[in-house]
Amino acid sequence: MGEDDPRSTNLYTALMSLLVTGTVGIDTVQTPTQEVTGVLGGSCSYFAAAASFFCPVRIVAAVGGDWPSEHRSMIEQFDNICLEGLEHRSQSSTFAWGGKYLDNMNERETLFTDLNVLEEDPPPVPESYRDSRYIFLANTHPTEQKAFLENFPNRAISVVDTMNLWINIAHDELIELLRLVDGIVLNDSEAEMLTGSRNAVTAAEKILDFGPKFVVVKKGEHGCLLRHHNDLAVLPAYPAEQTQVIDPTGAGDSFAGGMMGYLAAQDRVDFTSLQTALAWGTIIASFTIESFSLDRLSNLTRGNIDERMVNFQTACRVGA
Amino acid sequence: MGEDDPRSTNLYTALMSLLVTGTVGIDTVQTPTQEVTGVLGGSCSYFAAAASFFCPVRIVAAVGGDWPSEHRSMIEQFDNICLEGLEHRSQSSTFAWGGKYLDNMNERETLFTDLNVLEEDPPPVPESYRDSRYIFLANTHPTEQKAFLENFPNRAISVVDTMNLWINIAHDELIELLRLVDGIVLNDSEAEMLTGSRNAVTAAEKILDFGPKFVVVKKGEHGCLLRHHNDLAVLPAYPAEQTQVIDPTGAGDSFAGGMMGYLAAQDRVDFTSLQTALAWGTIIASFTIESFSLDRLSNLTRGNIDERMVNFQTACRVGA
Repeated sequence: MGEDDPRSTNLYTALMSLLVTGTVGIDTVQTPTQEVTGVLGGSCSYFAAAASFFCPVRIVAAVGGDWPSEHRSMIEQFDNICLEGLEHRSQSSTFAWGGKYLDNMNERETLFTDLNVLEEDPPPVPESYRDSRYIFLANTHPTEQKAFLENFPNRAISVVDTMNLWINIAHDELIELLRLVDGIVLNDSEAEMLTGSRNAVTAAEKILDFGPKFVVVKKGEHGCLLRHHNDLAVLPAYPAEQTQVIDPTGAGDSFAGGMMGYLAAQDRVDFTSLQTALAWGTIIASFTIESFSLDRLSNLTRGNIDERMVNFQTACRVGA
Repeated sequence: MGEDDPRSTNLYTALMSLLVTGTVGIDTVQTPTQEVTGVLGGSCSYFAAAASFFCPVRIVAAVGGDWPSEHRSMIEQFDNICLEGLEHRSQSSTFAWGGKYLDNMNERETLFTDLNVLEEDPPPVPESYRDSRYIFLANTHPTEQKAFLENFPNRAISVVDTMNLWINIAHDELIELLRLVDGIVLNDSEAEMLTGSRNAVTAAEKILDFGPKFVVVKKGEHGCLLRHHNDLAVLPAYPAEQTQVIDPTGAGDSFAGGMMGYLAAQDRVDFTSLQTALAWGTIIASFTIESFSLDRLSNLTRGNIDERMVNFQTACRVGA
């Protein structure tokens, strides 16, 4: 990269600065055939690892004194992840989650959720992060998401994730938040709960009425749908063999990370860029599920990703 | 069409001759908001109407003395459908089916199935149909499907549909049939029942091992998947608003009709042609569900179809 290359300037770094806030957790996962205990998990971890293949990504999260040093080493294997905003609270315990996948690998039961550090004050945003322009708010209480957003007056776009719990117990706060953000990424079941419509096209349209410019409905193994004003995009999931699906945990967060990473790298948020971003998110998520935790992503090259994208384009071709 | 145009010759008609055998029935359908009684239905009807937008299509089926003349008039509205092979048995009763869709419009209960004419001998194949090259065997007993196939020694390809009933009670006959045909079109639940694999990619691969050159797994609102040797295609369904979905009956048969109509018109069955055929099948099926019976298809123009295909291509674009 030469000195005249705009990419060598701080301006460039600021322009494509992507920030995610959410959880860095300790996961225990059971599948019908395997089980892991105490592995690196959390929305921030999956999101940041996925996004790091496209652009630098900043994390705002907190962990406790019990956070294993191997988990930090794992994140540090990804070149583009900045951990300045990862607060280490020695007197606290890290968020921990346990889940069990049923035979079809598409349904899961939560075994336990130990909020721990998540019950304390949210982690502060480092001063050096204030120029972040692409902001992703992983699933947490909408009031907390709203307060967090105010740290970034120069943001280009903000996108939120949510979950059934907040739709149930903080519905009005979520609706208020949707007036302030550019996009929302949510599951089909969450979209149905929020709108009363099981049809993803109709649900997405109703969510647009709440204020955001675009809505992405994730349908797991059935792909995803994007609604942006009057434009509509639909995409199948990457077609994986049964034996390739080891652990679906983190697929949704990886999808969002790939999507936001691509958008930030392009510094564009028009419909065509969003549509292309969905495909990159789909590809990254298809690698995430091939292992527990970040194991597969940590061994992934940009070449692996590009090769799979070419295969995906071939598989999805709509001729005429 | 000029005299020198190859399409004006009988050779051309024979080359692209598509034949379907299955049911022409009398349907009663309840949805959460509407109900119709005694409308034209059956796999042959939906298949032929859909295929007729692409090429001439021949029907082999039987109806009883109770078959309403309006049903014949409805089929005759489609230019390209030949009814020479539709046998009229005045002493018999037409196949009748009643179904009820549940709230989500994706699940249905069968209210009644009156086999009637289907319990008698199968209808004969007219001599003039023996040169048919593209053969589609709608769902019936695999032994009957196998016997029917023997009428077409010059066939280019044969494709079968099946259902859970035959997988249960005529498993071995179905497996034997799969050694003789080029392709099979079936639902995801049927693919799982036949292979034990809920994963459509893996199920399709296992079905290929039984003998056919290609497998199409229909996933309803979640689209479809094609496996052809080592090639794989995946396609979402056309993204329809909730209010556009009036009655899903016949969507699968229309999909197969659009697919086979396109293949016969091209006279090609390579992977790329099959993949394109899936898209045309998807588009035709998206119109079928906009009304009861063949109402929407009977008012459809080739222009409507082409316009929707362009929209679908835009919605499904996978950028990079």
